[in-house]
Amino acid sequence: MAETGSAGGAGFYLEDLAVGQVFQSGGYRMEAEEIKRFAQQFDPQVFHLDEDAAAKSFFGELVASGWHTGSVTMRLLVDSGFLADGFIGSRIDVTWPRPVLPGDVLRIEAKILEVTPSKSRPERGRATVEVTTLNQRDEPVQKMTTTLLVHRRRER
Amino acid sequence: MAETGSAGGAGFYLEDLAVGQVFQSGGYRMEAEEIKRFAQQFDPQVFHLDEDAAAKSFFGELVASGWHTGSVTMRLLVDSGFLADGFIGSRIDVTWPRPVLPGDVLRIEAKILEVTPSKSRPERGRATVEVTTLNQRDEPVQKMTTTLLVHRRRER
Repeated sequence: MAETGSAGGAGFYLEDLAVGQVFQSGGYRMEAEEIKRFAQQFDPQVFHLDEDAAAKSFFGELVASGWHTGSVTMRLLVDSGFLADGFIGSRIDVTWPRPVLPGDVLRIEAKILEVTPSKSRPERGRATVEVTTLNQRDEPVQKMTTTLLVHRRRER
Repeated sequence: MAETGSAGGAGFYLEDLAVGQVFQSGGYRMEAEEIKRFAQQFDPQVFHLDEDAAAKSFFGELVASGWHTGSVTMRLLVDSGFLADGFIGSRIDVTWPRPVLPGDVLRIEAKILEVTPSKSRPERGRATVEVTTLNQRDEPVQKMTTTLLVHRRRER
């Protein structure tokens, strides 16, 4: 993952973040087998489990569970390493504007919307981040706003 | 899953839903091995992966990924069968008020907040549902509001 116009895996702390910064990830290919395996465990509905049954369902084809898309988004966020102390969220707002299909290659863009130092805990703060998950045609398949805990750089 | 005071697996359609109805699920035990396996795939951060490393982390102990808790919540919702045509969501707002620990047994309560027939598509509508995920001490570990697509009963 790279900050637009700079090196990847930034490992940023609270004082490094600024409103408007954008981070981008690598890609993650959604294989049909993984879509079905996730659904068997967590979202066993016909349109996530079987191509033939899905063809007769609301979606008309096999699609990934939204929770699968969200979990892959989390993986792309963690792999990006753009926050030095990891990704600890207390809140997410998510919409799924279009389905994820087998073979889609997902990537994310994470944009800093707000940076708020804590009043009571000087060593930390919060960042509100808009994370858009896009397919290989650059169409958004998930839009998420999340609030993350971010630490200041520790004195060494 | 049972509607409070009535039978489980209700298989409700749009016209059966009313504001204030509450549905409850069975339980799902969060095993340490499953917490780690989910994290290896989707959220590989130390506090989800390894007890010893987690002890030195922000959480001080091994905790489940929020995406894991959310995915298990989805499973409990689907298994409940309280909607006849399944659970198709276009939006979720989620908070995680406290961590999920190995051995926790999760269950959900789903409360109907709003039922909105579609103006343009008479055969369907939307239900806004508040889904609270509770641990074995009845403490909320996840609070979610979601908007679900719900169909009317088809004429036979």
